[in-house]
Amino acid sequence: MTDSTIPPRATPTKPPLNKDTRLCISLAARPSNFGTRFHNYLYEQFGLDFVYKAFTSTDLAGAIAGVRALGIRGCSVSMPFKEDVIALVDELDASATAIQSVNTIVNDDGYLRAYNTDYIAAADLLKSNNLDPATPFLLRGSGGMAKAVAAALRDSGFAAGTIVARNETRGRALADELGYAWLAEPGEATAPLLVNVTPIGMAGGAQATESAFTAAAIAAADTVFDVVALPAETPLILAARAAGKTVITGAEVIALQAAEQFERYTGLRPTNEQVRAASAFARA
Amino acid sequence: MTDSTIPPRATPTKPPLNKDTRLCISLAARPSNFGTRFHNYLYEQFGLDFVYKAFTSTDLAGAIAGVRALGIRGCSVSMPFKEDVIALVDELDASATAIQSVNTIVNDDGYLRAYNTDYIAAADLLKSNNLDPATPFLLRGSGGMAKAVAAALRDSGFAAGTIVARNETRGRALADELGYAWLAEPGEATAPLLVNVTPIGMAGGAQATESAFTAAAIAAADTVFDVVALPAETPLILAARAAGKTVITGAEVIALQAAEQFERYTGLRPTNEQVRAASAFARA
Repeated sequence: MTDSTIPPRATPTKPPLNKDTRLCISLAARPSNFGTRFHNYLYEQFGLDFVYKAFTSTDLAGAIAGVRALGIRGCSVSMPFKEDVIALVDELDASATAIQSVNTIVNDDGYLRAYNTDYIAAADLLKSNNLDPATPFLLRGSGGMAKAVAAALRDSGFAAGTIVARNETRGRALADELGYAWLAEPGEATAPLLVNVTPIGMAGGAQATESAFTAAAIAAADTVFDVVALPAETPLILAARAAGKTVITGAEVIALQAAEQFERYTGLRPTNEQVRAASAFARA
Repeated sequence: MTDSTIPPRATPTKPPLNKDTRLCISLAARPSNFGTRFHNYLYEQFGLDFVYKAFTSTDLAGAIAGVRALGIRGCSVSMPFKEDVIALVDELDASATAIQSVNTIVNDDGYLRAYNTDYIAAADLLKSNNLDPATPFLLRGSGGMAKAVAAALRDSGFAAGTIVARNETRGRALADELGYAWLAEPGEATAPLLVNVTPIGMAGGAQATESAFTAAAIAAADTVFDVVALPAETPLILAARAAGKTVITGAEVIALQAAEQFERYTGLRPTNEQVRAASAFARA
């Protein structure tokens, strides 16, 4: 995230809701509050006549028909709709084509362009952390988000990678598609870059107190990237910090992907500081 | 509008927008700001976790699909959708059946019930002004709103009425349907109750400075009811006030019909004072 060339107004004043206020929404089976709080916080900061609201739905086609018919400006798409929504949009951006998965729709007068800002955010974080593409990595996971992060690694030039996934069918398929090795379990494997894209360490999950990589693997690594966003300080991140490693957190991914959505919906790019403030507000 | 039995909280605090906030919308070819400002003002007053926003659309079926799929709680329907939407809902309330016209949809878990709160508001105002159903009336107009008001008169027991409408086809049909007389032009006609449901006197219209009834007709009347809401003080209302007549204004109709929507969407009934305050805010 670079600093904005369009600074926010010195004294932004968000107008009261009116007929011309633009609506952005999200669609998910189980919505979180992050997007609603993140986007509305920035609308306030910029004094934008926008409003954001998360929705749940069991009828994806009806919901997208509503996005078109009501002129809803932007639509974030989460589980379980990221693949099914492809058939309902008009155009896929390269970020969505790369992984055949959509998390963001921008509506220009009824024409729906779809993006994947998870992929964009992962690629941005690899770049802003100055990671050398020659760095070998181990990536745990084989779900939709694992695909986004692995494709970002591949498209950022990382050639020496291993996908670690118990699910052999999906793990092998992902590895084969991107030209990486596959391993069922991390075992004794080490690499300078460790990436976790499983729910291990996620608050409320069955493995909330576990770390996706062993202390030995962390000790042998230079950088640890955990995509789990809640908590920001997972057992893996805490252990990596304690070992003095460079860390990239899921909190950074979720904030950056939301900032990428914000820019596509509004045309304005928030500064790093604004993204941090919006993310802190959204997580509070 | 009677006083509420459910008083607003002493110090209502509207929560910040979140994933559970309920959305209500309106659909119109040319939306006004009235509904958005009226409803959001009352949500603030009551501390309700609701948000309201007007939309325009050219795809009614897609918009109603969106109402269902997104669980949008309420949908106000304006021109030109009031008749076409009948085929898209699950149930018509008696208020909508009476005139085969819908201006309000309430969504209970995907089941859409349709109402006409213009009809309800007109009937309520006839009652709250203690008008004797034996009173003969002249009603100018033959459009959708004229039908709502004329049906409210008929269903309130007013038997001696004349529909005055230049459009003979529509005027005669409306008169015949409700059992009233028809007249092409008001001419020298008089009645104790005069009702205007044409755009005569509407701000920005071709007849903004005209009165729907002559000074002589006003002088001969007891009560003048003008459905034009903008301005509240139309030439007809001003002349009627100057002549010391009882007046019912379009501002009362629009506020009352919106209050009826508010109650159906939220389950809470605003007091007369709250409706007046919300209406004043919405018109400012």
